[in-house]
Amino acid sequence: MARREAARLLRRLGPLAVESPTRGMPHSQHESTNRIVNSCRRFHWIPSLQRPLCGPTTSGGIYEGQSSANKACEVQKRTFGSAATHIQRNPAYSELNSDDVSYFKSVLGENGVVQDEDRVAVANVDWMGKYRGASQLLLLPKNTTEVSKILSYCNTRRLAVVPQGGNTGLVGGSVPVYDEVIVGLAGMDKIISFDNVNGILTSEAGCVLENLSKLVENEGFIMPLDLGAKGSCHIGGNISTNAGGLRFIRYGSLHGSVLGLEVVLADGTILDMLTTLRKDNTGYDLKHLFIGSEGSLGVVTKISVLTPAKLPSTNVAFLSCNDYKSCQKLLLAARRSLGEILSAFEFMDHHCIDLAMRHVEGVHNPLPASPYKFYVLIETTGSDESYDKTKLEAFLLRSMEDGLGISEASVKVGAVYKYDLSIPVEKLYDIVEEMRCRLGDSAEVLGYGHLGDGNLHLNIVSSKYDDNTLGRIEPFVYEWTSAQRGSISAEHGLGLMKAEKIHYSKSPEAVQLMASIKKLLDPNSILNPYKVLPQSVL
Amino acid sequence: MARREAARLLRRLGPLAVESPTRGMPHSQHESTNRIVNSCRRFHWIPSLQRPLCGPTTSGGIYEGQSSANKACEVQKRTFGSAATHIQRNPAYSELNSDDVSYFKSVLGENGVVQDEDRVAVANVDWMGKYRGASQLLLLPKNTTEVSKILSYCNTRRLAVVPQGGNTGLVGGSVPVYDEVIVGLAGMDKIISFDNVNGILTSEAGCVLENLSKLVENEGFIMPLDLGAKGSCHIGGNISTNAGGLRFIRYGSLHGSVLGLEVVLADGTILDMLTTLRKDNTGYDLKHLFIGSEGSLGVVTKISVLTPAKLPSTNVAFLSCNDYKSCQKLLLAARRSLGEILSAFEFMDHHCIDLAMRHVEGVHNPLPASPYKFYVLIETTGSDESYDKTKLEAFLLRSMEDGLGISEASVKVGAVYKYDLSIPVEKLYDIVEEMRCRLGDSAEVLGYGHLGDGNLHLNIVSSKYDDNTLGRIEPFVYEWTSAQRGSISAEHGLGLMKAEKIHYSKSPEAVQLMASIKKLLDPNSILNPYKVLPQSVL
Repeated sequence: MARREAARLLRRLGPLAVESPTRGMPHSQHESTNRIVNSCRRFHWIPSLQRPLCGPTTSGGIYEGQSSANKACEVQKRTFGSAATHIQRNPAYSELNSDDVSYFKSVLGENGVVQDEDRVAVANVDWMGKYRGASQLLLLPKNTTEVSKILSYCNTRRLAVVPQGGNTGLVGGSVPVYDEVIVGLAGMDKIISFDNVNGILTSEAGCVLENLSKLVENEGFIMPLDLGAKGSCHIGGNISTNAGGLRFIRYGSLHGSVLGLEVVLADGTILDMLTTLRKDNTGYDLKHLFIGSEGSLGVVTKISVLTPAKLPSTNVAFLSCNDYKSCQKLLLAARRSLGEILSAFEFMDHHCIDLAMRHVEGVHNPLPASPYKFYVLIETTGSDESYDKTKLEAFLLRSMEDGLGISEASVKVGAVYKYDLSIPVEKLYDIVEEMRCRLGDSAEVLGYGHLGDGNLHLNIVSSKYDDNTLGRIEPFVYEWTSAQRGSISAEHGLGLMKAEKIHYSKSPEAVQLMASIKKLLDPNSILNPYKVLPQSVL
Repeated sequence: MARREAARLLRRLGPLAVESPTRGMPHSQHESTNRIVNSCRRFHWIPSLQRPLCGPTTSGGIYEGQSSANKACEVQKRTFGSAATHIQRNPAYSELNSDDVSYFKSVLGENGVVQDEDRVAVANVDWMGKYRGASQLLLLPKNTTEVSKILSYCNTRRLAVVPQGGNTGLVGGSVPVYDEVIVGLAGMDKIISFDNVNGILTSEAGCVLENLSKLVENEGFIMPLDLGAKGSCHIGGNISTNAGGLRFIRYGSLHGSVLGLEVVLADGTILDMLTTLRKDNTGYDLKHLFIGSEGSLGVVTKISVLTPAKLPSTNVAFLSCNDYKSCQKLLLAARRSLGEILSAFEFMDHHCIDLAMRHVEGVHNPLPASPYKFYVLIETTGSDESYDKTKLEAFLLRSMEDGLGISEASVKVGAVYKYDLSIPVEKLYDIVEEMRCRLGDSAEVLGYGHLGDGNLHLNIVSSKYDDNTLGRIEPFVYEWTSAQRGSISAEHGLGLMKAEKIHYSKSPEAVQLMASIKKLLDPNSILNPYKVLPQSVL
């Protein structure tokens, strides 16, 4: 029986899974499911998560900047699968002086102005230890007015600012590149209200996602998104990066779930769009500008979000398929037969399992003699357990009869060059095969991801980082994705890592309009500089 | 049994229902359900739907403009519940001349340039006959390039333009106010693709919603929205107005369903954002600017939209409650017990039924001796009929046991002063009661709407239009809604009718930013002038 095997596999994978940001938390089956699929992504990053590395990273070169502020500025030259570009510090920005610090103390008090080297160092580096800035100042506002005063002052003084939530991003969007002032939102973690008739949560932006999840779950609702990093990430950061996460296939993007925002603009203007209404067609829906703009258009200070009702029944099945075409057929069949209860449809190829078997102690293929090449994980979530089980089993039976093949599997792999791509489902696996041809024996190419969302995680594993391998991967992977009208960042954003790559996914006209909007909202470009948009258009 | 009674009632209401834009169409139960709730809205408007009135309307004053182009410009002074403001023709706009017409003919051919008085007259008036412009020219582009050439030319020449889809809007957004050139999208009605694995539809903007619905239903999917006007409205217009409609509670707003857009900007720039990806976090998500901006920022020419799987099982129940508090409790219980299959939760007060009984021949209260004051309609949609029925019945039984009261009802009323408001559910009915106190015997006040969405339709029926009654309704209704942080337009947009009222729902900072974005995207303000935003901020 698929479910029993799955449960056994989940138990077997337990020791790996606790190395995630959710360590020590009770895991729902949904999370466990995702742990398997995403364990490859987490495995190598975990050591630096709880306590970011502050020393030099092991694999990166050091970028030498021009300003005196650059001494400590180390931007890792080669990251997980992407060469970082050499970015100059923008000389239009002022450098911090003691008058600035005095002003901030007058607004925030002593406790809100952090100059302690150790504390500032932690805020200077991302959780993977990949990106590191050289800020000398961390500000911790307690309310929107304080954020407004900070930004108004920085705008006048031309001090660059990086807003920082839980600092769990993957593309270097939440840490300084040079000496930007860090504005941390952790002190703004108040719940404003929860409407338990309509499931509408209103809170400050610095609330940790997991705390919000617990709150609404006690009332019979769930947050519309769930992430591995939920124990650290902030809801404001989730919204600023338009985080995807585990519940995307079921509840869609935050553009559909977020009802209202309060945002502070670069000049300190407080933009109150904090409606809690499901429907509001009065004028342009400005909040969408701030969802996914990675803090470069404004700082999100309050949010209201629609939370779906909590459904008690979750079931999981693992299946295997002979070829990618069968995975596609299975997806179609699952959509038809499972309808509204389908909550995850993930896939991986057998290379993932093979690599996991070789490298991860205690992991065994639950179907060792499997002749299959692809593995699919299907999850359903509904309100009636016995019924949902019956439905899932009936679907699995039909799928078997249709010759799609049924068995169980899961996997864990190490990963090096990592790409997070959106590609039309019918072509999604082609890039994996093309990449294998290009790289031959020099690297192992793995494909897995959220098939239900058209989201491929492409991992290329080789013995060491080298320019030769990288040159065979990039820019090919971006060009190929672009030719399929895909996205070079399905759910992680552009941040620092991919700001200069935006043209692979967006037309010149669109990038130009983004730049115009950036200039309109932040004419001095103080907000989260060097990120999201290419320097050439600003 | 609730369902049998409901079915009988639906049959009884049949003759009324066919007076809708969906006349002659086979009605699903979902539509039938909605017909009852919305029949009040449709009843008085139907005669003018299929053939818009071209003569002067009966209840309106005539606005005297200043330009020579104004002779035929009649803006109805008093509309359904809102006094139209006196708007001056903007003298910055050029007037159409024969060179312009020659140019358009060179681009579109003779057939694409309509000067025939009768045909232009139809395009000058909205489907209710409430708003009427004086355009002399209707252009019918066949592709995006032609739209681009039209706008580029008009922008250079300072000719104002009104984009027009199916012209089924309710707020005067799709017809000229003065002599704007009408750009009709009806000729752009090609299906580009349908991905029947992922349910992703890509088409031109001029496709009629109903045609798209049929297309995707044949493939086992449904459009994420459904409207009474679906036989006429265009998908491009739906998106430009962020149409709500019947499926909102289940599938949410178009901001969540629309995957990509192609838009032509005021200067003719073609903005290609026509992705078909579910996930894409590369830069600002610009398409949201055009969803709900009512054609004032650009003309939508192509769309891609995510369509949910079609679910075969629909069940409906009518219930009654003693008070509004019980309706709220019922909503909470329905969300909990019915979970993912809940697809509609509508309510109405007994005044609606009473009025319908008095005015609509053949309509009887299915529960004539009912002592209840409120009626609730619950619909579920799922993938398994027998199971869903069981679930709905179990829920109804529990609700009865909880003392919320169960019976059947439905209603049809005439309506005069109409308001479409979003209000937090717990206060939603207060405005109905307050309005009754204000108006006393001079008018009958009815409350109904999509309780599940927090959307109240407030209808105030009196023997005739008069300034005294209007003065007691407005601006009170807007001020009250504003004080609750509600929306003065839940699903209809602002258009011409409420452009000057935007400040009741949006902060000055937000309106100012909207104006800045309008100026950025349309510096000569040629697109859909006099609408959406107040003239004072442009």
